[in-house]
Amino acid sequence: MIRLDTAQTGAFLRSCEDAYILIHRSPDGDCIGSGYSLQAVLRQMGKRAKVLCADPIPPRFGFLLPEEPEEEFAPKCIISVDVADETLFGDLEKTYRGRVDLCIDHHISNREYAAHLLLDAGASSACEVLCRVYREMGVTFTEEIAKCLYTGMATDTGCFKFDNTGAGTFRAAADLMEEFPSVRYDLINRAMFDVKTPGQIRAEIAMLQHMEYFLDGRVTIVWATLAICRENGVDERDMEGLANLALSPEGVEVGITVREREPGQFKISLRSAKDVNVSAICQTFGGGGHIKAAGCTLSGTPDEVRSQLIAAVEAAL
Amino acid sequence: MIRLDTAQTGAFLRSCEDAYILIHRSPDGDCIGSGYSLQAVLRQMGKRAKVLCADPIPPRFGFLLPEEPEEEFAPKCIISVDVADETLFGDLEKTYRGRVDLCIDHHISNREYAAHLLLDAGASSACEVLCRVYREMGVTFTEEIAKCLYTGMATDTGCFKFDNTGAGTFRAAADLMEEFPSVRYDLINRAMFDVKTPGQIRAEIAMLQHMEYFLDGRVTIVWATLAICRENGVDERDMEGLANLALSPEGVEVGITVREREPGQFKISLRSAKDVNVSAICQTFGGGGHIKAAGCTLSGTPDEVRSQLIAAVEAAL
Repeated sequence: MIRLDTAQTGAFLRSCEDAYILIHRSPDGDCIGSGYSLQAVLRQMGKRAKVLCADPIPPRFGFLLPEEPEEEFAPKCIISVDVADETLFGDLEKTYRGRVDLCIDHHISNREYAAHLLLDAGASSACEVLCRVYREMGVTFTEEIAKCLYTGMATDTGCFKFDNTGAGTFRAAADLMEEFPSVRYDLINRAMFDVKTPGQIRAEIAMLQHMEYFLDGRVTIVWATLAICRENGVDERDMEGLANLALSPEGVEVGITVREREPGQFKISLRSAKDVNVSAICQTFGGGGHIKAAGCTLSGTPDEVRSQLIAAVEAAL
Repeated sequence: MIRLDTAQTGAFLRSCEDAYILIHRSPDGDCIGSGYSLQAVLRQMGKRAKVLCADPIPPRFGFLLPEEPEEEFAPKCIISVDVADETLFGDLEKTYRGRVDLCIDHHISNREYAAHLLLDAGASSACEVLCRVYREMGVTFTEEIAKCLYTGMATDTGCFKFDNTGAGTFRAAADLMEEFPSVRYDLINRAMFDVKTPGQIRAEIAMLQHMEYFLDGRVTIVWATLAICRENGVDERDMEGLANLALSPEGVEVGITVREREPGQFKISLRSAKDVNVSAICQTFGGGGHIKAAGCTLSGTPDEVRSQLIAAVEAAL
């Protein structure tokens, strides 16, 4: 594994041909914005490029997808963006494991699986890293690229709310806003953070009503059970945006959201309000992420899952 | 009324002595941040200055207040910040109406009541305007001033979410973050946007459960009634942060929050998701504000209030 800096990454991108761009399963704003901005940049340079994801792109990110049809071609180069671990390729893992030529990432938990790696764990998002790469390459920014990069930076920072937001994040956003004043950043934010379907609102009410408090209110658990999803007509995937709900009570230090994927199978999101490293907690369960926002999967009964989680958080507090 | 530019405002502040700084009733992050930053700047220059507000500063803004005791002195100069209209002085109006020497504001609805006015309706917040004034004056920024200015910009933009956020807002925030990296901006954001008391969470559930939809879902009303406040042990003032709740359903263009102050007396907040000018709607009821966020007060029965509001919004749609 060879570490690259921003300039070397630019040189790599200039010289690559016929690139597949891999993003992680359960795609979010940052990997989608990273993937499609890079596709646009490479196409602008006359290269063939396409984004591959194990899961469909959720409809609310549809505005980031280009109108041009996908090209069919065999890859000469495999690039991953915002993917800390090859297992996060999902169903694409069996095909691309050990084959990634370049990884561009911002996760401190990156497994260094690629032949070349640009990792900036201090950046808010992969989009912020890519923004710097493109600027140094002298890429001509377009509205399409600006929307992708803004969306990635905004979604990974909770709209510039979390402590991964840095001066560099704000300056990158300011530059995009100045160059492309006609983009409706406010409508992007609304779609990303505020809009809920009636089913999501009902499900949120149910989850709030059953919020559990532990360790003197320093820890909360919110359950997105299959029953809540079924009763309110929502999909477990529609619950992605609710991971911060568990942090809303005053005094909470760790907020846990448990999403039931199938009976006995749970996807866990941990959020830290202050200084607890939830990435370390999730790593003890085979997961990972960022210090303030991390995840893992657990199986068992709800009682077993609850006990395991509370014990792990108690040890960390 | 004489319009001042940023440099002239700086000169005014340099020459003023013994200043009272007036902020608006029901104080929010922007007027508090503006007021206390200006107090700090004037004191730094060896002047006497103090902030006056008709209502108490809510406890969650306590971290912006200086430790030094308030000085007792008679004013030689009256400055208002973030106050569009003298009626917003609340109980201080009778004393200071017609006496304001300098107003620094960002509300397009400013009534030009002061002898001198620095108005930048394109700025996100009065704090953004003041930040520019202080920079041009060559003020030595302190952590205290940085916290005040950041809090004002963040709160008035919904944490950089609304369309009043501009490149200048982002750059001002980036500068503060670079100069004062030890300030916990993430904890300020958490306190301003995410933390709720158990009573607020219960009240929010009740409000969401009774959300009303009108005009094919393009308009919503959320009621913070005295009954909901009483049942959940919260004060009507604790409901300040909930004005965006009414905008959460998909497809809503105007979200209305009605807070019952006393039986038959309602404080109305309108939020616009897209392009409806809610300031114009509120002006027809004697209120005002910004294009996307405005307010007014109405009296009558809930049915009367509802009909008046829906008719006014329907006319604007």
